[in-house]
Amino acid sequence: MDIFEKIKAERPIVHSITNKVTMNDCANIILALKASAIMAMDASEVAEVTSVSKALCINIGTPDINSAEAMVNAGKKANELGIPVLLDPVGAGISQLRKDILKKLMNEVKISVIRGNYSEIKAVVEGTKATIDADLKDKINENNIEECVAFAKKASLITGAVVAITGETDIITDGQTAYCVHNGHEMMKYVTGAGCMTSAATSAFMAVSDDMLKAALYGVCSMGICGEIAMERMKPGCGNATYRNYIIDAAFNLTNEQFERMAKYETR
Amino acid sequence: MDIFEKIKAERPIVHSITNKVTMNDCANIILALKASAIMAMDASEVAEVTSVSKALCINIGTPDINSAEAMVNAGKKANELGIPVLLDPVGAGISQLRKDILKKLMNEVKISVIRGNYSEIKAVVEGTKATIDADLKDKINENNIEECVAFAKKASLITGAVVAITGETDIITDGQTAYCVHNGHEMMKYVTGAGCMTSAATSAFMAVSDDMLKAALYGVCSMGICGEIAMERMKPGCGNATYRNYIIDAAFNLTNEQFERMAKYETR
Amino acid sequence: MDIFEKIKAERPIVHSITNKVTMNDCANIILALKASAIMAMDASEVAEVTSVSKALCINIGTPDINSAEAMVNAGKKANELGIPVLLDPVGAGISQLRKDILKKLMNEVKISVIRGNYSEIKAVVEGTKATIDADLKDKINENNIEECVAFAKKASLITGAVVAITGETDIITDGQTAYCVHNGHEMMKYVTGAGCMTSAATSAFMAVSDDMLKAALYGVCSMGICGEIAMERMKPGCGNATYRNYIIDAAFNLTNEQFERMAKYETR
Repeated sequence: MDIFEKIKAERPIVHSITNKVTMNDCANIILALKASAIMAMDASEVAEVTSVSKALCINIGTPDINSAEAMVNAGKKANELGIPVLLDPVGAGISQLRKDILKKLMNEVKISVIRGNYSEIKAVVEGTKATIDADLKDKINENNIEECVAFAKKASLITGAVVAITGETDIITDGQTAYCVHNGHEMMKYVTGAGCMTSAATSAFMAVSDDMLKAALYGVCSMGICGEIAMERMKPGCGNATYRNYIIDAAFNLTNEQFERMAKYETR
Repeated sequence: MDIFEKIKAERPIVHSITNKVTMNDCANIILALKASAIMAMDASEVAEVTSVSKALCINIGTPDINSAEAMVNAGKKANELGIPVLLDPVGAGISQLRKDILKKLMNEVKISVIRGNYSEIKAVVEGTKATIDADLKDKINENNIEECVAFAKKASLITGAVVAITGETDIITDGQTAYCVHNGHEMMKYVTGAGCMTSAATSAFMAVSDDMLKAALYGVCSMGICGEIAMERMKPGCGNATYRNYIIDAAFNLTNEQFERMAKYETR
Repeated sequence: MDIFEKIKAERPIVHSITNKVTMNDCANIILALKASAIMAMDASEVAEVTSVSKALCINIGTPDINSAEAMVNAGKKANELGIPVLLDPVGAGISQLRKDILKKLMNEVKISVIRGNYSEIKAVVEGTKATIDADLKDKINENNIEECVAFAKKASLITGAVVAITGETDIITDGQTAYCVHNGHEMMKYVTGAGCMTSAATSAFMAVSDDMLKAALYGVCSMGICGEIAMERMKPGCGNATYRNYIIDAAFNLTNEQFERMAKYETR
């Protein structure tokens, strides 16, 4: 049974403590992949909700004190029960609140996968007090790919998590193996929550997999592929709202056969 | 004037204290039916907002302490003014917080209609300290329909509310009469908030009706019919995001004539 | 370079402290115009987020104590840095909480543009303790346009802000010049957040302009034009959900050439 069929067969619950802006789209992308979505956010109940889940997705896009506490509570419960945890450090470094939340999360919760853009991943690493000498541009492309891969591997070793840096090219690494993914479409940057949805989708794969590197690869590649498929359906007059719907639609119809045919990645 | 025309003529305000994941869809389904939507959530203002409304929809899908207090405040004000209250006990029983909120709501607020799946309704009844000996599966279908109807009637008598249990077959009862509804499409389970939207739509019918059983029947049937109409518009490549939009679109165009032609229900 | 091209070239960050119901649509309309959207809401971090932004959009549609404090904090920071602030006084006057928030905002923050319907603008002015003798209907149309323009100009002079009153006809004024806008479509009233999106779009124009009157005119006219373009794409079976997507799509494709061809406004 391939991983897409496995999600359909098991319908795992994915608990997301997520961004208020994009939570509806995140729930629908999880459902599109045939997993179940639950989005409890209050510190007083999240541990119980995590307990019945198969993956936990933490997104700090619209943080407050209560949700920060909720993230730690849910994360600790996930660790206790061996449930994988994804961290999406949206806007990491933009405020002291986000720095504090990330520091707390990195200190108190074992994270399985971290997915963000280059500057967000950098801010996460800095929160661990480790140092990475790097001053890369946010745009990962063919010109700086070697340097970015080296950065990603170091970030993975420091954090102990699979690191997925998304950009023009995406890099996914467990510190040893690194995949460079060339799927996606630049139209995706005009959809709010394209990154959040990538994290949500990745969580769905994590919920049925023991291999976090593979789950992250499938999550990131799948979203890129959906971005490409969605683009093919666009007609004159269509814009980013229709495109958002088409991305989720594509996830709904995505099969392993399609994935294997369209996935574009190489190992570095 | 039929009930659809009545909503159009009166444009009643429906106040929803609802799920943060699905609130946009809930507002749009209320507008689709030509009622007005308002979604104040803070405990300090909800009573005033309820005062200018014709129905109150309470959904506990993303609860916290403040929203729990808000639900009680709004509910009491609604009771005081004779405004009907719908309760959607999303995820009832999954956490102590939700149990506490439900217990408080059931003790302090008179609810007109409760809409949920079987296990949610069961959790609500348990919160009243009444006991129902039932261990039905969550899937209501032709094989266990008798048992489910008996359960629903008991739940209605215990809670004093019209009870709408939604599933493959839906059951709506005031403890005496029970309607079994056969509308809907299984694709609806891949749309986040399909249940929340059913509750929101039901509230719009409650806002212009004195007959809560009929309002609940119209709400549940209408959503099922919209799910069927939406399915007819689906083309290759479409998925759950497009389907969600088509459901709301169908509600926008729904007429009483269409309702009477498509509604499939029987009395038990 | 026209103002649409200017947004594309600069990709300014627009910080919105907005309505939880409509925040996803607001983010997507900002992205549709090619600006960047960020939506931090917590009082403890909003000032830092405003600091990296080019415009601040404050919408009181789903207020609570924390967000009220956040609005003031962000507004003060914006004033300090010369960043323009838009206020959307959703539901102004409906509760004491909203009155208190508006009074505080009007006293402590210098607002550049206020956009709302007639009764909302009236409630804002009353919060300043100024008095306007006016008892207009909420529907601005050809019959009461003179009176409404006089009211809008007075409201602008009292608040010191550009005032945009939206209705069947929209009025935008800095107290001296008044534009009456005749774009839009009545279908827009069935889309939740059409007003919020108008405010969000206006903020994107404010982010690249020194002329707040022009920015407000472009925001209001653009949304009306998008409503008209969206209507042309509607087919049988379409409803308010599809229409919402088409409005955002239209904003994505909107050009200055299209704007100049379709904008319908006169000076009074």
